[in-house]
Amino acid sequence: MADSITITLPDGSAKELPHGSTAADLAASIGPRLAKDAVIAVVDGTERDLTFELPDRAEVSIVTPNSDRGLYTIRHSTAHVLAQAVLDLFPGATFAIGPPVQDGFYYDFQLPEGGTFHEDDLERIEARMREIIAEKQPFVRDEIPDSEALELFRDHPFKLEIIKGAADDPMSATETGLVRTYENPPNFIDLCRGPHVPHTGRLGDFKLMRVAGAYWRGDESQPMLQRIYGTAWDTKQALADHLHRLEEAEKRDHRRLGVELDLFSFPDEIGSGLAVFHPKGGIVRRIMEDYSRRRHEEAGYEFVYSPHITKEGLFHTSGHLDWYADGMFPPMHLDDVGGEGGTDYYLRPMNCPFHVLIFRSRTRSYRELPLRLFEFGTVYRYEKSGVVHGLTRVRGMTQDDSHIFTTKEQMAEELDSLLTFVLDLLRDYGLDDFYLELSTRDEEKSVGTIEEWDEATAVLRQVGEARGLELVLDEGGGAFYGPKISVQARDAIGRTWQMSTIQLDFQTPQRFGITYTGADGQRHQPIMIHRALFGSIERFFGVLTEHYAGAFPAWLAPVQVRVLGVRDDHDDHAFALAERLRAAGFRADAVEANEPLGARIRRAKTEKLPYVLVVGDDDVANDTAGVNPRGGDVERGVGIDAFIERLAAEVAAHS
Amino acid sequence: MADSITITLPDGSAKELPHGSTAADLAASIGPRLAKDAVIAVVDGTERDLTFELPDRAEVSIVTPNSDRGLYTIRHSTAHVLAQAVLDLFPGATFAIGPPVQDGFYYDFQLPEGGTFHEDDLERIEARMREIIAEKQPFVRDEIPDSEALELFRDHPFKLEIIKGAADDPMSATETGLVRTYENPPNFIDLCRGPHVPHTGRLGDFKLMRVAGAYWRGDESQPMLQRIYGTAWDTKQALADHLHRLEEAEKRDHRRLGVELDLFSFPDEIGSGLAVFHPKGGIVRRIMEDYSRRRHEEAGYEFVYSPHITKEGLFHTSGHLDWYADGMFPPMHLDDVGGEGGTDYYLRPMNCPFHVLIFRSRTRSYRELPLRLFEFGTVYRYEKSGVVHGLTRVRGMTQDDSHIFTTKEQMAEELDSLLTFVLDLLRDYGLDDFYLELSTRDEEKSVGTIEEWDEATAVLRQVGEARGLELVLDEGGGAFYGPKISVQARDAIGRTWQMSTIQLDFQTPQRFGITYTGADGQRHQPIMIHRALFGSIERFFGVLTEHYAGAFPAWLAPVQVRVLGVRDDHDDHAFALAERLRAAGFRADAVEANEPLGARIRRAKTEKLPYVLVVGDDDVANDTAGVNPRGGDVERGVGIDAFIERLAAEVAAHS
Repeated sequence: MADSITITLPDGSAKELPHGSTAADLAASIGPRLAKDAVIAVVDGTERDLTFELPDRAEVSIVTPNSDRGLYTIRHSTAHVLAQAVLDLFPGATFAIGPPVQDGFYYDFQLPEGGTFHEDDLERIEARMREIIAEKQPFVRDEIPDSEALELFRDHPFKLEIIKGAADDPMSATETGLVRTYENPPNFIDLCRGPHVPHTGRLGDFKLMRVAGAYWRGDESQPMLQRIYGTAWDTKQALADHLHRLEEAEKRDHRRLGVELDLFSFPDEIGSGLAVFHPKGGIVRRIMEDYSRRRHEEAGYEFVYSPHITKEGLFHTSGHLDWYADGMFPPMHLDDVGGEGGTDYYLRPMNCPFHVLIFRSRTRSYRELPLRLFEFGTVYRYEKSGVVHGLTRVRGMTQDDSHIFTTKEQMAEELDSLLTFVLDLLRDYGLDDFYLELSTRDEEKSVGTIEEWDEATAVLRQVGEARGLELVLDEGGGAFYGPKISVQARDAIGRTWQMSTIQLDFQTPQRFGITYTGADGQRHQPIMIHRALFGSIERFFGVLTEHYAGAFPAWLAPVQVRVLGVRDDHDDHAFALAERLRAAGFRADAVEANEPLGARIRRAKTEKLPYVLVVGDDDVANDTAGVNPRGGDVERGVGIDAFIERLAAEVAAHS
Repeated sequence: MADSITITLPDGSAKELPHGSTAADLAASIGPRLAKDAVIAVVDGTERDLTFELPDRAEVSIVTPNSDRGLYTIRHSTAHVLAQAVLDLFPGATFAIGPPVQDGFYYDFQLPEGGTFHEDDLERIEARMREIIAEKQPFVRDEIPDSEALELFRDHPFKLEIIKGAADDPMSATETGLVRTYENPPNFIDLCRGPHVPHTGRLGDFKLMRVAGAYWRGDESQPMLQRIYGTAWDTKQALADHLHRLEEAEKRDHRRLGVELDLFSFPDEIGSGLAVFHPKGGIVRRIMEDYSRRRHEEAGYEFVYSPHITKEGLFHTSGHLDWYADGMFPPMHLDDVGGEGGTDYYLRPMNCPFHVLIFRSRTRSYRELPLRLFEFGTVYRYEKSGVVHGLTRVRGMTQDDSHIFTTKEQMAEELDSLLTFVLDLLRDYGLDDFYLELSTRDEEKSVGTIEEWDEATAVLRQVGEARGLELVLDEGGGAFYGPKISVQARDAIGRTWQMSTIQLDFQTPQRFGITYTGADGQRHQPIMIHRALFGSIERFFGVLTEHYAGAFPAWLAPVQVRVLGVRDDHDDHAFALAERLRAAGFRADAVEANEPLGARIRRAKTEKLPYVLVVGDDDVANDTAGVNPRGGDVERGVGIDAFIERLAAEVAAHS
């Protein structure tokens, strides 16, 4: 039938449609619900507008907002509506680019005479956007010659720059000399590759979030533009959920809690991404480290120490200066005696080569393997200042870093028990919702043969799958020396954090030429497993702070118990009781009754203390206290010994 | 009486002597013993030969070998005898310089055609030196014109260089154009300022120790010379004692023990003065740290963490880049976003400024003082490669570093309790023989007013004196920001090590403008006390290793107990017993009976383990073991429970 085409659907079934049918027609032919939900289509692997006319024998899937692609399109189209609204409301404004991003979109503008948006402009822009949405303006795709485009955007220099292909931009002139545009009639047209929703009426569950300055092309020698960020979803509920998550995340933001709870800070004088831990943060960190250390000792790890700097040769041997130099701090040039022209010393970005040297410090026998070296090793990595973020993306971090040297025969079993160990330990810190990610070879940045990589990747995959957890592929995400499995944990509000990584490495032992004597009396090359459990202590600290919203469980809390007297004549008793609790091994303090009890209890709640004990006349007489557990009801007249027993049990259960 | 002179002796008494009397005559007039012991004299503050003719009204003391000055002279004169012997025995040899040094002397030579001394040459040279000594050659002082000296030393280019004053040398041409020489007739003459013993017969208790290469003037662009080291004393006994101490020190050398006991190493790949701690050394270090940490917690210290690097501004504020730059590693230059021309980052040589920033991170009240911040803070200092020595002089070190912020009123009490705390803790680690050193202002390198220094120094002196320990003055040895008291500890073989330092600092709080709110509601400036107890953990580790000669007490030993089966059919029991001891909290291992019991016991002794348990048939039957305590007699049939109790008590007593 020359008048019909046959389309293959994602489930493999075929659908016959009249010649000239569009993706929208296909959706309608499947069902009214899909026709309504449809956003774009993927035709033979390429994203297309719903108006796209389907070729015969095409493989087509209809994209709805239930997918990342669908939401991405909604956000992208909403960015166009934002641009139209701004150009309408701010005469003389010009626009640059406006892509979708995680959870939303932004658009960059330049206002006349260096003007800036104010927060209250956002409401006005939102209102205009709603008008445009109500008008159900279609998104009309076109391709026009460069010359015509230059004329069309003559008042918009950033668009002209894109058209002229002045920079390497996906939207710059096509090979055909044509430029693709999307028009929202009657007034708005933008350069864009698309695709887009059929009309603006498909949009609406959005909110403009904030304004920020941003350099054109991220280059500080270029003009500073005004960037408006927004979020967009497909339903009111999805938008409301997102805003609620943001609010929750804001309350849990570890950078804010770090200040409020006096845990840590980032003094400007030291530099970006370099944290100091204050006494209270120091306590939490130390308990985290101590517990981890104890568990590692019990699991047969041996603790070592190594310096934070080394001569460059070590990182040449390891390959870091070939493959990881961008992530390293610049060298310190030492005009040392004996070195011709001196020596470059580097801060270490990783601990591995140091542990290899410890392995190599004497001959090793198979009887010693697996040899599990552990260090709380501080490393320094050069992260661009733009990506540095609180404790979760820093320049100086302490890894709870292990390097396990094993025989090939032991490798799979060691990896398996390692993964069990890692997941158990994360659970002890209160995280229990995981999936695994398998990161494979980066074709651009890797050492070793394909065969070695394949073998290592296969072993990791096997161990990961045996676990019964979801295993997601991260193509090309491996370290330069080998593939890795990482444990991704979901926190209390459902966000995912990359935690422990387990990397398999056949390369480093080879580069350093380390060997052990086998049972056969011959020299063999061990395999190295790189493993960080927390990832970095700083990052884990940040994650736990957000996970617990600063309300650390009793075993981790900087202050576990505060004792308050009802009146100031109970102060002596309160201070003595705090001392008794300290003698019992708890972190306890007392505060003088120099303000009303209510105010003091409120302050303790702000500090998120697990327990506040209040002592009045009866309590002094009976050796009791009123116990205020965090988030629970007051329990009056609790015997102190009973309380001590209860707190001890609570702490012991977790540590 | 024009024919007599009057001399004042050190005790203030006067002595009348004939005009023209020499220092030797004075000694003889005092007594035959002094005449025999006399080495040189100090006349009006200047060292002179005994042949020096005394002026009227001079203040004179006779120097004997009971003083450093006396021994110094004996070593200096012995160096001349060494030079004479070498020039006699090695035709064509030329000589450079030969000063006395700690415990001995050296002399630098150049042999014809780049020849080198061999160890067995030393015996031949010693024999020739003994002949010269037997000849009782006088040391004859003279002053000759430059021109004559140039002729006299025409075959000795290094001497010519000295005469020409080509370099800044104390022995170069005098203002008078005369050069001082000392002759040992008939064959030897040297350039020298003197003074010397009267004749070579006064020498003899010496030994040549070793040969080493040394650049002329310590400059590697200059010729490499052959340096012969010797030691010299005044009596056979003193020489024998010294050689015995050397032997003991050699046995205890922590660098040797570090390898033998597999504690730590200095991999060449990392760089000079940068140690890695192997698992066994890691255990000892961790126990040292843990115990220190616990004691500090009990004493009210709060633990913080800070990065090892910072932007340069911090060290400008602190004054380190003005006063301590020579001791710092060179900067890392970061082309960072936002910084014009980028920023220099430095590795920290001290932790203090970081703790000041933590203090300054929020407002402080007098109620919080004294605030005692503690960190195991790793610092990096640039030490010349020539002075780097094992763990005792390193480039990377972890300080157990405290900074105490106190009010002026609390200062003296805090210092006093601090000193008690420090001495108690050092005693816990097995050191108990102390004296104190008070280091005062370095006129060249210091900040702050003289008054502030005087006040701080007075307080330290008062606290030090109250302790009842010997207090020695170290003029100009303070840090650039304040005076200090240091605790000097004598180890098991009588050597002195500088341990803890307590520094008082009025300057840093001022430079950083830190304040606290006093009880009066006003802002006040706190005083800072800098305090490191171990000094550095690396150094303390090295000192303890030497103090214990590697035989660490049970609480510190990496392996506390080794279990050995008498025969291989006892192995299962031995391994089970080791496991039982580990479960009881001890560090225990077992070794298979794959070689005779005697050999395995000897190996355990080489490893300096506190206890070796041997189990045979009876022990298996009776739950006993043969206990071999290190350095004690074997005790047979000891019940395991009793042993566990005994070891637990031994460990608990120290930790």
